[in-house]
Amino acid sequence: MSETTTLDAARARSARLEQQIAENPGRFRVLTGERPTGPLHLGHYVGTLANRVRLQQSGVELMLILADYQVITDRDDIGDLRATIREILLDYVAVGIDVEKATIFTHSAVPALNQLMLPFLSLVSVAELDRNPTVKAETAATGGRAMSGLMLTYPVHQAADILFCHGNLVPVGQDQLPHLEMTRVVARRFNQRYATDAPYFPEPDALLAPTPIVLGTDGTKMSKSRGNALMLSATEDETARWVKRAKTDAERHITYDPQSRPEVANLLDLLTLATGEDPALAAERIGDGGAGTLKRELTEALVEHLRPLRERRAAAASAGDDVLEVLRRGNERANELADATLADVRRLMGTDY
Amino acid sequence: MSETTTLDAARARSARLEQQIAENPGRFRVLTGERPTGPLHLGHYVGTLANRVRLQQSGVELMLILADYQVITDRDDIGDLRATIREILLDYVAVGIDVEKATIFTHSAVPALNQLMLPFLSLVSVAELDRNPTVKAETAATGGRAMSGLMLTYPVHQAADILFCHGNLVPVGQDQLPHLEMTRVVARRFNQRYATDAPYFPEPDALLAPTPIVLGTDGTKMSKSRGNALMLSATEDETARWVKRAKTDAERHITYDPQSRPEVANLLDLLTLATGEDPALAAERIGDGGAGTLKRELTEALVEHLRPLRERRAAAASAGDDVLEVLRRGNERANELADATLADVRRLMGTDY
Repeated sequence: MSETTTLDAARARSARLEQQIAENPGRFRVLTGERPTGPLHLGHYVGTLANRVRLQQSGVELMLILADYQVITDRDDIGDLRATIREILLDYVAVGIDVEKATIFTHSAVPALNQLMLPFLSLVSVAELDRNPTVKAETAATGGRAMSGLMLTYPVHQAADILFCHGNLVPVGQDQLPHLEMTRVVARRFNQRYATDAPYFPEPDALLAPTPIVLGTDGTKMSKSRGNALMLSATEDETARWVKRAKTDAERHITYDPQSRPEVANLLDLLTLATGEDPALAAERIGDGGAGTLKRELTEALVEHLRPLRERRAAAASAGDDVLEVLRRGNERANELADATLADVRRLMGTDY
Repeated sequence: MSETTTLDAARARSARLEQQIAENPGRFRVLTGERPTGPLHLGHYVGTLANRVRLQQSGVELMLILADYQVITDRDDIGDLRATIREILLDYVAVGIDVEKATIFTHSAVPALNQLMLPFLSLVSVAELDRNPTVKAETAATGGRAMSGLMLTYPVHQAADILFCHGNLVPVGQDQLPHLEMTRVVARRFNQRYATDAPYFPEPDALLAPTPIVLGTDGTKMSKSRGNALMLSATEDETARWVKRAKTDAERHITYDPQSRPEVANLLDLLTLATGEDPALAAERIGDGGAGTLKRELTEALVEHLRPLRERRAAAASAGDDVLEVLRRGNERANELADATLADVRRLMGTDY
């Protein structure tokens, strides 16, 4: 199949899945999450967090993995993970994820999940690992650094993340469609080899998620490491300063033209995020008011739009319970699920003695 | 260093270790074991089991892993592992391993051990995995079958086997010296990265073990899959039949010449194993008695030598307790050790939240 056909098929499949979610959300368990390399920013919010909130509010069960071992796939320094994870948990609360309902957990706390790596590694060949597009892409991004064994095998670890909890839905961007293929292959081969009577692992579905790219102050993709990001923990002042620093262009008259005026379009998109006004109409309205007017409006709108996030974050940060309690509960629940799955897997493989 | 120099150094080191074992056996914890692909035979006894018994009797602690996940590194069919493992446990009892003192366990039952694979995989590069001599050799032996991810990463799994229990001594044959190098590298790098104040993992030592090769009835290396083996569970009749079937050569006069008369020398070596008589002297004594006399003597001596093994095996097999109870106790103890090590590793890495 050509890439376009694959993408079209994935889109059609995702549309059907959205319909099924609307009809019967209880059928779905979503597995998603992130590498805890730093606190989250507006790009994460627009890119994935808002979609998670939407899915959870629609009644789908949310499993969120903080993939702490994946932090060291391509770097030596694991950093202050405890501090980073605390910030991320507060970010989750801030954006409106119901952390009491979601199961939030870390790799390092769920041994039975990690054990699944072993039988799963027997189901894939080194050649398949080598040609995994994600591994290739991530390797290219590390600029010639020797690839670690953990990086090569990470799609198999990801299969364990998804399958340990029988996750059946994974939100992915267009360019991440191949990510899920390894998990589907592992599930299929495990079933063929050890569960011939009745398939044990579901082959999870990819749910195409919106992946708008948010630009940072310098006009490149927002990223904490580039220092161009508006963090979700930003105060009102920091938000105002971020907008002030944001790059625009030499043309005074405001128009909405994402192709040729990406920086101005980015600010208009953020205005749309905050107010719901169509970006082209906003541009027309502002017109000769120029970047000054646009930035003044955006500052006000963003500060207002992010107010509930700041308030939820502040409340959670000052609550009597440490927000890490959320993680402890999630790890406990993840261990229950993983222990049950591993017991099944051991029975199916005949390794329960 | 040239191979000879390395081997000479390893020999000298092993001699010093044997002396330290004699002086203070309590300092040593040996990790060894096997892939449970079938019950054990006389080749295993002579090759490794007798050495384990010797080490245990000298006061060294014995950890024996039945590497069940390694059964599927290079084959699809995992087989009836429960039955195989029961036979191996009886074989252990038969050869004189004190299974109450040893810790006998399986990979699949110790999740915290398996979890160590993840941080350890981050410490080695794919290039290092690719050039591991063991992986290369095992791949060559599979005759072009696609290498599984589990095979490529198995030296890292082996590092987890050895390090989870802080094993500091691993018996290896001459050709297996490189096996241990990956474990030493992993221990060193973990210490450098996460335990800079005081090394956490010991770098285990290789203890050069005798590796006499026992031939089967057809004159090739004894192996269950070749159907040429004298199983440790053999009855008196089966032992006699095995000797009867054993290949000799066309020369009537018996001489001890391992180079040019390997089959006859093999039978003389087994006679030595059973009686302690020097093989060259036995050959001289038998001389014109020929293969008939040699085989008659060997049958009697082997049946007698293996009698205590048969008796211990029969007693264990008919005992009220299932011999698998040994494994359950071992798995429990291995889990205690692995949980403690994983807790330390999580603390050292800062992944205890």
